[in-house]
Parts: sequence; C-alpha cells; structure tokens
Amino acid sequence: MTYQLHYWPGIQGRGEFVRLALEAAGADYVDVARAAEELGGGEDALMDDLAELGGPRAAFAPPFLVDGDLVIGQTANILLYLGPRHDLAPAAESGRLWVNQLQLTIADLVAEAHDTHHPVGMGLYYEDQKDEAARRSEEFRQQRIPKFMGWFERALEGGDAWLAGGAASYADLSLFQAVEGLRYAFPHAMARLEPDIPRVVALRDRVADLPRIAAYLASERRIPFNEMGVFRRYPELDPA
Amino acid sequence: MTYQLHYWPGIQGRGEFVRLALEAAGADYVDVARAAEELGGGEDALMDDLAELGGPRAAFAPPFLVDGDLVIGQTANILLYLGPRHDLAPAAESGRLWVNQLQLTIADLVAEAHDTHHPVGMGLYYEDQKDEAARRSEEFRQQRIPKFMGWFERALEGGDAWLAGGAASYADLSLFQAVEGLRYAFPHAMARLEPDIPRVVALRDRVADLPRIAAYLASERRIPFNEMGVFRRYPELDPA
Repeated sequence: MTYQLHYWPGIQGRGEFVRLALEAAGADYVDVARAAEELGGGEDALMDDLAELGGPRAAFAPPFLVDGDLVIGQTANILLYLGPRHDLAPAAESGRLWVNQLQLTIADLVAEAHDTHHPVGMGLYYEDQKDEAARRSEEFRQQRIPKFMGWFERALEGGDAWLAGGAASYADLSLFQAVEGLRYAFPHAMARLEPDIPRVVALRDRVADLPRIAAYLASERRIPFNEMGVFRRYPELDPA
Repeated sequence: MTYQLHYWPGIQGRGEFVRLALEAAGADYVDVARAAEELGGGEDALMDDLAELGGPRAAFAPPFLVDGDLVIGQTANILLYLGPRHDLAPAAESGRLWVNQLQLTIADLVAEAHDTHHPVGMGLYYEDQKDEAARRSEEFRQQRIPKFMGWFERALEGGDAWLAGGAASYADLSLFQAVEGLRYAFPHAMARLEPDIPRVVALRDRVADLPRIAAYLASERRIPFNEMGVFRRYPELDPA
C-alpha cells in the first residue's frame, strides 16, 4: 500500500519529520501536494483534501497521512503509527513511550521556534511583529535552545549510539531535523552552543550518514530551508 | 501499584488533563507535590524529582508520571499510557490513534492559550508584555478559538455521544477541560461562540456529570483556575 503524505508543498515544516521517517524506512509514499496541479497537487487541493478526507475524523491541519481507510493527523501521531511498522521504534512499550516523549518534546521546541518569528499572531506577517520577534528570540536563543539541547544531550549520556537504544528511531531522525533547523535559523547561537552538546552533534552526523537519509538529503525531494517554514533565517534575530 | 503524579501544586495547568484521567479511572494515585514539604511535597522537591527521576530518561518538564520503574513525561504521552489501562481509550488501534490525535490538537490549543498572556517570553511577567498579549489575544479569540472548537464540533457530528465512539475517552475529559479553561479566560468570547458549538457544549456537560468527575470537581482536589496557570482571566484580553 502506498502512503499518501499531505503537506504544504513549498516548505520542510512539520511535514519534514514525516518525510524523514518515510525516507529512512524506504517506504512507498506519494507527497501528494507536490505533484502538478493537474495531478492533484498544489495548495488548493491540499486544503480540499484536508477538509474532506476522513469526514468527521478529518485532520485539523497538515501534515496528515492516508493509509488505506486511515487518515492520521498530528505529526507525532503519524510517527507513532509509522514507527513500529518500519523498525523506527523499539519493540517494548517503555521504549515506544520514550520515543513518543522525545518526539513531543521536539514538537514543543518546533512550536517555540515558530513563535520566535510569529510571537503576536500567525495571521500577521513577520514584518508586522519584528520588535516582538526580537524580544522573543532573545529568550529563545539564550535560554530555551540551551535547555532543550541540554536535555537531549543528557538523554544521550546513557552511552548508546541512539536515543532509544541500539537502533535509530524516528526520534533520532527528528532530533537531526531540529538541529538542522536551529543551525539554519540561529547559526551564531548554535555555533556557540555546539561545543557543549557533543553527543547531540554526533547523533546529527550519524543520522545524516544513514544511507537512505544521505540519498534523500542529496535529492530534489529535500526542499531547502526558506523563510516560509518553521525555521527561518532572519539575521536580526540571531546577532553574531 | 500507586501512581505518582508530579506537577506544580498550585495550578491546574497541563497536569489537570492527567488528574482528570486518573480521577475518571478511579485510579490509586498521589499528587506528589501537593503533599506537605516534610512529606516530599512542594515546588523545590518537584524540581529535584524532575532532575533526578528517570536518570537519562528524566522528563523535560512537569507533568510526569511514575509507575514503578517507568517515568513518563509529556501530557499526551502519559495519557497514551493510561488510556488503555483504564478503559479511557478504544481497543482498536485506529481508535487509539484518533484519541491521541484529539489530545495533541488540544495540546496545541493549550499552548496557544498560554501564549495569549505570554507572547514575548515565558521568562517575563504578563505585565511586561500586555500590549503584545492584547494583539495576540485578539487573533486567538476571533480566529483560533472558533477554528479549534469548530473542528471538535465537526468531530462530534458522527452522532456518537463521545468523541471516539461509545464510551468516554481521555480526549473527552480533555475537551471538557479545554472548554472550562476557555470559559474562565475568555467568558465573553465563549458566550458568543457557544450557540455555534452545541455538540461540544453537550459533551462538556456529559463529562461534568460522570460520577467520578462530578465528585472530583466538588472536592478540594480540584484546584480553582487562577492567574498562574495556562488559562488566565485578564479582562482586558476578553472585551465584552
């Protein structure tokens, strides 16, 4: 069965966590909205599918995954579904809960990263909330990034190569993506912090070297970071 | 086995979603930080437990639940664990995914509700970001609350009494709590909206009438809403 991933076609965003899992699994999937409009792609079709697929169980927002009759929304929920099906989560319940906990903490980090450029409202442009964004970003750079990354560093102190034991899980892929996003949006802050989080950096490198992930990152399927996604590079929000 | 719930002792906050599930289940639990300090309660002990319990798998933030050797963090993850153990989630995988999806969408709503009074930074007081809070609250009242509540209304259009079929799940309890919180923080906005969401209001009433929930709400274990929690009543953020 071919999975259908439905997500904004022009950004990495939250959908990228799902893309990375599907790619690492070598899963058969279609990134629906990235197809040509005559083939059902595009943002208008995405909004139509969001409203219709699943009926009363339609998703609140992209990303959502369609697998046969199932329509699954919320990034962490999609990964909870995919993980055990593709050896991207431990077999034991305790391990699966831990991986879900890691993913939800990454989701919190991602939401806060988004709020650095949209603190006052997502319906407004960044240009209409630049002063507030500068205030929020200062706290994010100085306190929140070190707190989140320090927590992941500690989680890796158990000595295993991966966050949840002997094999890569979707949480490892997601931490890779979080580091990449933070490096893109806050390069100066990350350059200062990275000496303090060697295990996180090493994990990021291990994920990047996974053969399927390396192939994906080198392909055109990997959308470059840009200023429409969650992680945005506004130099004034990350002073040297 | 007695569960240990670890959460801030003076607020409902995110911990309330766990308290409601434990109460609805009639589960044996201790709300650790609410004990007297000489018995291990208080905020200092909470922070010590947060740092220590679980070792490399310690939680990022309260709430966290201890069940024997397991230390489980993240509200939705705790509920994912408790749900099937206490008949607060469907037996089928598709139903459990749906309940988790509902819970994660409520978590998004809760995070946005928090940001209405702390848009610029959680390290600052509300008084230092009142103008920004007013701007963010306007969008939240006018666009986000109706969007979230409209989505839950549609989810109930299937005709079942509960969000996930024939029995109350933890997502029903959580939607009750979200409505209560919104009514507390944004009474005028909710009074205007509620005629449009009759199924959500009826569900809220059904949850309030569950015998164990009714008993809990009438007890001293239910902490009143206040201006330290997620849902805060600042009249200037909800004009008549």
